[in-house]
Amino acid sequence: MGSTAVLAGAVTAPGELRAAAPAPRLRRIATEEAFMMPEMYEAMKAMPREAMANYDLRFMYRMAHAAPGDDERRRLDSLLDIEHRRLEIMDEFGVDMHVLSLTSPGVQEFEPEEAGRVARATNDRLADIIQRHPLRFAGLAAFAPQDPKSAAQEMIRAREQLGLNGFIVNSHTFDEYLDEEKFWPILEAAEGTGGAIYIHPRAPGASSAAPMRNYGMEGGFWGYGAETGLHAVRLILSGVFDRFPKLTIVLGHMGEGLPWWLPRLDDRTRAANRLGTADGQLRMLPSEYFKRNFLITNSLFRDALALRYSIDRLGPENVMWSIDYPYGPTAEAVTFMDTVDISDVERALIYHRNAERVFHIPPVSTG
Amino acid sequence: MGSTAVLAGAVTAPGELRAAAPAPRLRRIATEEAFMMPEMYEAMKAMPREAMANYDLRFMYRMAHAAPGDDERRRLDSLLDIEHRRLEIMDEFGVDMHVLSLTSPGVQEFEPEEAGRVARATNDRLADIIQRHPLRFAGLAAFAPQDPKSAAQEMIRAREQLGLNGFIVNSHTFDEYLDEEKFWPILEAAEGTGGAIYIHPRAPGASSAAPMRNYGMEGGFWGYGAETGLHAVRLILSGVFDRFPKLTIVLGHMGEGLPWWLPRLDDRTRAANRLGTADGQLRMLPSEYFKRNFLITNSLFRDALALRYSIDRLGPENVMWSIDYPYGPTAEAVTFMDTVDISDVERALIYHRNAERVFHIPPVSTG
Repeated sequence: MGSTAVLAGAVTAPGELRAAAPAPRLRRIATEEAFMMPEMYEAMKAMPREAMANYDLRFMYRMAHAAPGDDERRRLDSLLDIEHRRLEIMDEFGVDMHVLSLTSPGVQEFEPEEAGRVARATNDRLADIIQRHPLRFAGLAAFAPQDPKSAAQEMIRAREQLGLNGFIVNSHTFDEYLDEEKFWPILEAAEGTGGAIYIHPRAPGASSAAPMRNYGMEGGFWGYGAETGLHAVRLILSGVFDRFPKLTIVLGHMGEGLPWWLPRLDDRTRAANRLGTADGQLRMLPSEYFKRNFLITNSLFRDALALRYSIDRLGPENVMWSIDYPYGPTAEAVTFMDTVDISDVERALIYHRNAERVFHIPPVSTG
Repeated sequence: MGSTAVLAGAVTAPGELRAAAPAPRLRRIATEEAFMMPEMYEAMKAMPREAMANYDLRFMYRMAHAAPGDDERRRLDSLLDIEHRRLEIMDEFGVDMHVLSLTSPGVQEFEPEEAGRVARATNDRLADIIQRHPLRFAGLAAFAPQDPKSAAQEMIRAREQLGLNGFIVNSHTFDEYLDEEKFWPILEAAEGTGGAIYIHPRAPGASSAAPMRNYGMEGGFWGYGAETGLHAVRLILSGVFDRFPKLTIVLGHMGEGLPWWLPRLDDRTRAANRLGTADGQLRMLPSEYFKRNFLITNSLFRDALALRYSIDRLGPENVMWSIDYPYGPTAEAVTFMDTVDISDVERALIYHRNAERVFHIPPVSTG
């Protein structure tokens, strides 16, 4: 990793990067990068103000109706743009590829039929864009859990006909979670097509949000992680990974608390005699499922201690890099991953090799 | 720490410990050790079966009505015993002191008047026991948040007249949290008497428990930590540590997820412009409050990675040792803390020095 220092310095002076660093550098694949297509924007704009009953709906409503010049309007513009300003920013900081995913809460607050329509249109457009820029973009297919059977059909179409790289879902759908039997067709489609499901955060639903309605806690301060971590624990404890052993789940934000809680989950599983082959028991410890069936990305965690802990807990083959564009800053994300004190092998796995493996991205040589 | 290996080996052969290890060893103060007094037991027994509407109530009901020979009856007996079998187990594994606290959910599910009565009787009995065994027991005073003004009076009495070492509370009280203004007399009494408040887990309340009602998740698998971590984040984001800057909070179970989430909380605080001097803003970053106003204990986390991370994140002066007796095993807790790879200075702080400082326990020389 001899070029790391040069690259890190070059982040603030991108012109010099290309001049001063002819040596090969690691490919940089960012794995939790948000976008929006016109169909979602139109559906958001059409939602009535009276329906803004929860945090995610208010988030969408405010963005859909933001005035020019507002922060939220700028964010909307950044989400809707894929092939212009986004590529310039990627170039400026040497980001080779965005793995694109429809921004939270995706289609999950829409009526089932509209949700399916928006997901399909989004996936079509996404496949077109990737075809135009195969080295710059990969993409995760949206689907509408509101109708699990249709969702599974769209997932299969997205992988097998559109060639998309995996799937994106935003935690609960009307307070229901993917471990519930009605959603098993979705898990089956993911496993069957070899597509990982990225479970992205959204705010907790009405059944659990109440104590987070103070101090703006429903979103990034606490609710996103509490909700998404809960979802992952439900999946593990439900036993779906015994039913779908090759299912792969990706969690952002350093694993939504799971890497930290694994020792406690293992301890409780042993103490409560949950390990075994009887109904309701688990074949493996939670940490064993987590290492086999999950990967994490570091979106918005630019923290050396948490990264070191995660590598040591999960293995370097289970950690990926992400920016969380446009919600997180590209410059800091690149500088962190260029300079954080980990081994060359670990950095290569986290920067691109794990993403290539999990999201079916062909390796390339960079230089 | 030359005697560590000898001590660790001796855990399984306590007779040899006293024979083979005349060299001084570190004092061992365990800081989250549960008990129950007859008044709480009687109040639990008197609760009608129909009232068992939540996880904690069912926990109490089952324990109060367990048949002889049941695991829950054995646990009840272990909680009610303080001066006999408990002391034998402490001796067997070389545990010098238990910092005792009324077991969860304490008095917080009782009617306000009864809750106050049980808390006062518990504190009186606890002070008597400590007086009989001043080197073996310290104790945290119970109080009934249901009536904050009476609670504050009892807290002051417990510290100033009974000489108890701090306070214990079990997260929410009927879905309300200590950051709410009605509870400020409690925070004021804690700060004013120099007594730390140990916020112990309990199951989430009706306003947030729904998604944890599957797979037994309301308790130690997930709900305890989710609930107690949420409580700590509410305290931080509410700004109560600007109002009560000397208030000290203790969290068990490796800090209930907070050490892990601090980078995210800091990042969000900066990004949302919450840092400042205006109303609703915080004077410091969440991680700065956490390091100034919180300590954590390792109850049931016998995990070297999490301990190393916590020391590096918080400083060794903010981490304490605990067993979580009788819910956790004494032998493993001692072996872990004797043998985990940390420095001698860190081990002394975690094993006893921090507890002496925070809980006003006079230092002694051991040998």
